[in-house]
Amino acid sequence: MGADTDGGVRSVVRALDLLDLYDERDQRYSTRELVELTGLAKTTVLRLVATLEQRGLLWTGSDGRVGAGPGLLRWARLAHALWQVPEPVRAVMRDLTVQTSETVNLYVRVDAVRVCVAQEEGPLRLRHIVNPGDEMVLWGGAASKVLLQGAPDSVLERVAAASPQGPRHADRLRAEVAQARERGFAVSHGEREHGVSGVAAPVHRPEGGTAPVAALAVGGPTARFTDAAVRGFAAAVVEAARRVTEIGFDPGAPAAAAASRGDR
Amino acid sequence: MGADTDGGVRSVVRALDLLDLYDERDQRYSTRELVELTGLAKTTVLRLVATLEQRGLLWTGSDGRVGAGPGLLRWARLAHALWQVPEPVRAVMRDLTVQTSETVNLYVRVDAVRVCVAQEEGPLRLRHIVNPGDEMVLWGGAASKVLLQGAPDSVLERVAAASPQGPRHADRLRAEVAQARERGFAVSHGEREHGVSGVAAPVHRPEGGTAPVAALAVGGPTARFTDAAVRGFAAAVVEAARRVTEIGFDPGAPAAAAASRGDR
Repeated sequence: MGADTDGGVRSVVRALDLLDLYDERDQRYSTRELVELTGLAKTTVLRLVATLEQRGLLWTGSDGRVGAGPGLLRWARLAHALWQVPEPVRAVMRDLTVQTSETVNLYVRVDAVRVCVAQEEGPLRLRHIVNPGDEMVLWGGAASKVLLQGAPDSVLERVAAASPQGPRHADRLRAEVAQARERGFAVSHGEREHGVSGVAAPVHRPEGGTAPVAALAVGGPTARFTDAAVRGFAAAVVEAARRVTEIGFDPGAPAAAAASRGDR
Repeated sequence: MGADTDGGVRSVVRALDLLDLYDERDQRYSTRELVELTGLAKTTVLRLVATLEQRGLLWTGSDGRVGAGPGLLRWARLAHALWQVPEPVRAVMRDLTVQTSETVNLYVRVDAVRVCVAQEEGPLRLRHIVNPGDEMVLWGGAASKVLLQGAPDSVLERVAAASPQGPRHADRLRAEVAQARERGFAVSHGEREHGVSGVAAPVHRPEGGTAPVAALAVGGPTARFTDAAVRGFAAAVVEAARRVTEIGFDPGAPAAAAASRGDR
């Protein structure tokens, strides 16, 4: 498919893939490495780097290698302003870490993945660490079964296709999503990562609807998620998610921003 | 020029322009508004929004309007990890606010604009507020005359073309850049914004070179930038910039990251 037949979307995807090569470990790549990592032609890489560098998203360091650029700082401000989870929601999350002694995460679904938008760390040393902005798979984990409620079946099929089991995972996933909807929460043990368990419940949009806007989850080592513990966690997570729904979590328009808009 | 003749760069630029419509004021736009603001065809806007939404960079809220998405959180982490100005440099900047009682900014040049990478606020109520990540023009302001040292003449011409005076501003800009290089600092009064003055000095790369890696600047109301005050500010800024050069400011590879790399 040529760039002229897809309206240039392919180039945008390539540019974002290129930016995705970078994380906090402060990588810098030579052009040759970028060609190898992306599998793109050198001329394409050079053009993309030049465009992204012009916008400050990439930056050629003093060693001639290409790293992440200062233009990201602007997007950082944007992300913090718009995706900062309101303090009352944070407070509910903190309460939940106290009740469960486990780490609490808030996830939203972005197409066929989930993104962590907030985390409150549990008090114990062995913790389930996920950073805000981290993308995670939707084919496993308790939060996934919550977030896939109300998602188009085409999304669920793509999620299944990306799983280790492949497309045939779709049926099982559908059943688990249905069960989670019925019970009001989901439980997982070692699905995504061996030795990691989770319990998650849906946060709904203020105006309701069938698709949850987010999943509130506690996660930790499977050894601490015994049947008895899970029963307690489930009750606590469901109640906390209900409180967050009541407070109102409407991503992209956090309560704080909405409130300050009202002041103007 | 078709998307097929420029290697798709045009689409990448359009996608980034679309993201640039968003800032911390939490705008959300309808498709119709996006069409009006970008001047693009509706089909193009829909395709770009779908692509950016799939990557979590945009997000359709409960009201059906399009806002900034949670995928930006990942970039926020990246920006903070890589562009966090090292604490020793921060300390120099804080000292400078104490010496001058004015706000101190550190800028880098990104193509034909400058980007603020750090700010330390002065103690007075009337302050020169610039946020990290903010893009500012290079055709005026003290920091610009520092940052344009060593820049290709083609950049300077584009900077001049973007100024209120248009391309004929290039000659004056060249002269001012040369003068700033000779003196070791630059001064501006109300060039970019009426009533705002600044004094800036170059920070050089650890290995030297003719092009400064950054400009350290104090900025504030012109009324406080008398000739006598400017003499004192210039001496202080030049000395502070020399200290930052000594500490080593190499953007995209902050000292902290470099140090922790060494530990691994």
